[in-house]
Amino acid sequence: MSATRFGIVGGGALGGLYGCLLARAGFDVHFLLRSDAEHVRQFGWKIETPLGDFEITDVNVHSSTETMPACDVTVVALKTTQNAILRDLLPGPTSKGGRVLVLQNGLNIERDAAEIVGYERVLGGCCFLCSNKVGPGHIRHLDHGRILFGDYCPSGDQISQYALGLCDDLVKAGIDAKVVADLATARWKKLIWNIPFNGLSVVLNASTQELMESRESSDLARSLMQEVHRAAGACGSMMSEKVIQTTLDVTREMVPYDSSMRIDYMNKRPMEIEAILGNPIRHARAHGCEMPRVEMLYLELLFLDRQNSVLSINAK
Amino acid sequence: MSATRFGIVGGGALGGLYGCLLARAGFDVHFLLRSDAEHVRQFGWKIETPLGDFEITDVNVHSSTETMPACDVTVVALKTTQNAILRDLLPGPTSKGGRVLVLQNGLNIERDAAEIVGYERVLGGCCFLCSNKVGPGHIRHLDHGRILFGDYCPSGDQISQYALGLCDDLVKAGIDAKVVADLATARWKKLIWNIPFNGLSVVLNASTQELMESRESSDLARSLMQEVHRAAGACGSMMSEKVIQTTLDVTREMVPYDSSMRIDYMNKRPMEIEAILGNPIRHARAHGCEMPRVEMLYLELLFLDRQNSVLSINAK
Repeated sequence: MSATRFGIVGGGALGGLYGCLLARAGFDVHFLLRSDAEHVRQFGWKIETPLGDFEITDVNVHSSTETMPACDVTVVALKTTQNAILRDLLPGPTSKGGRVLVLQNGLNIERDAAEIVGYERVLGGCCFLCSNKVGPGHIRHLDHGRILFGDYCPSGDQISQYALGLCDDLVKAGIDAKVVADLATARWKKLIWNIPFNGLSVVLNASTQELMESRESSDLARSLMQEVHRAAGACGSMMSEKVIQTTLDVTREMVPYDSSMRIDYMNKRPMEIEAILGNPIRHARAHGCEMPRVEMLYLELLFLDRQNSVLSINAK
Repeated sequence: MSATRFGIVGGGALGGLYGCLLARAGFDVHFLLRSDAEHVRQFGWKIETPLGDFEITDVNVHSSTETMPACDVTVVALKTTQNAILRDLLPGPTSKGGRVLVLQNGLNIERDAAEIVGYERVLGGCCFLCSNKVGPGHIRHLDHGRILFGDYCPSGDQISQYALGLCDDLVKAGIDAKVVADLATARWKKLIWNIPFNGLSVVLNASTQELMESRESSDLARSLMQEVHRAAGACGSMMSEKVIQTTLDVTREMVPYDSSMRIDYMNKRPMEIEAILGNPIRHARAHGCEMPRVEMLYLELLFLDRQNSVLSINAK
């Protein structure tokens, strides 16, 4: 069997890192890049990582899907706010029946890919990764890196042979990957952090540290978490209530950290509001569960996002 | 019967205006002032008002309650955030059994005065006033000016003779005053505007116009209003649901307006969070009614208020 061929859609801190780890391990990796295409074609990738710094030259760089070969696995590593372009990007690399691995934040964000290539061909993954793009083709991986992934629509409670095989590939590349039978629960568990701390850090203009230091905001974070925990249960993802206290404790011990949503907001980029808040709200509602505080946070963020985009347009 | 003697505690845009209207009408008015005391003593008050501009010279100005005579009515026209000093300010002017008229925003804010002089001696009023202090001793009254007031703890549903007599005095001075049998309902009705628009204007950094122009924030304002309306009902203040739509319509037609809380926040002054949100939340809870969205707004404001006071201290 020949080595798995990977297509990487999006060359940010996440797609760049995982793609290069796969390339270093000998997999046939094809990057679809936009702003960095020319730089990476000429100079390759430069990766700083606790796993051992390395460079990749002679990279398969594509500026368009037309030059991309059909891939076994196409990794979606864009922000969900760009998902509208998947309709143009996915048909090429998935033309011979390959799978799609969606490594994005939020809930049900696999659906955009699934509507294009079919639900049975989509896997999703939650990444626990601390990584930044510090320059064109230059990734600085700071810490962590685990991927919990699984079939978006598993048949039964079984982990598919396909997912197990993909996991072997990822692990061979030095990636801390693990297959889960229940992707939805993994996603809800991550949302218990993502919803309060992404949302409040924008609305209250504060770092996670500042949010944890004040009783009012940490109380607020806790009550948001309780809503998410209850909604997860209503949607069939039962978790011990202890996850709330544990998540708060871990957050209190974290280094001062700006959530991805806050970084997007400060840089006047669109925030992943629908993926992280809108989809969970709608999914929970469809299961008869309302999240009034989360919905309030959602509306506040939509308002701020709109004001931000007006400012951003005016500044151009 | 000699003319009623009024003590005015607080010489801002509200106390200054009403006090001067009373003085112009021949009532014996004594102002307790802080920063403006010396200016007003020397130059008097200058009032611009749609009722006809006027000046008041030879003003009874006091810098301390020690020089104040006992008053028939002591008007509390401070911000509620300063209520801690009422313990020092009220005993003097109320020493001969006079009443206290509390003209402040919020709910149950009369309690601070009532604990000092006795519940039966306290009246409260809601002001619908557009007025600014534009310089020392200089008030610019722009629009409106109605006072709805009544006994804080009425005996039965009857309006007291005392309140009716006080209303006559206010009307004689050209003030659009009206006694209500049910002060609590008047206060809740005002909170239906004050809670969403004071709160959201700070958290979302927006004018009332901006809040009404966006669907997200006007939806959010509506859902906050619905919670306040329901809480009012639980506390015995029944209102037609139409008040919500009417209030939204009026707000949409208003000129761009900065709420008092937003002005305080921008000037790094403490906001009236307890009076306008904390007290209604606690009062509703005591009547078995939770307001999750209002409570979330409350916690957000407390966080921002604390951050603001830190910035304010660091700037000094």
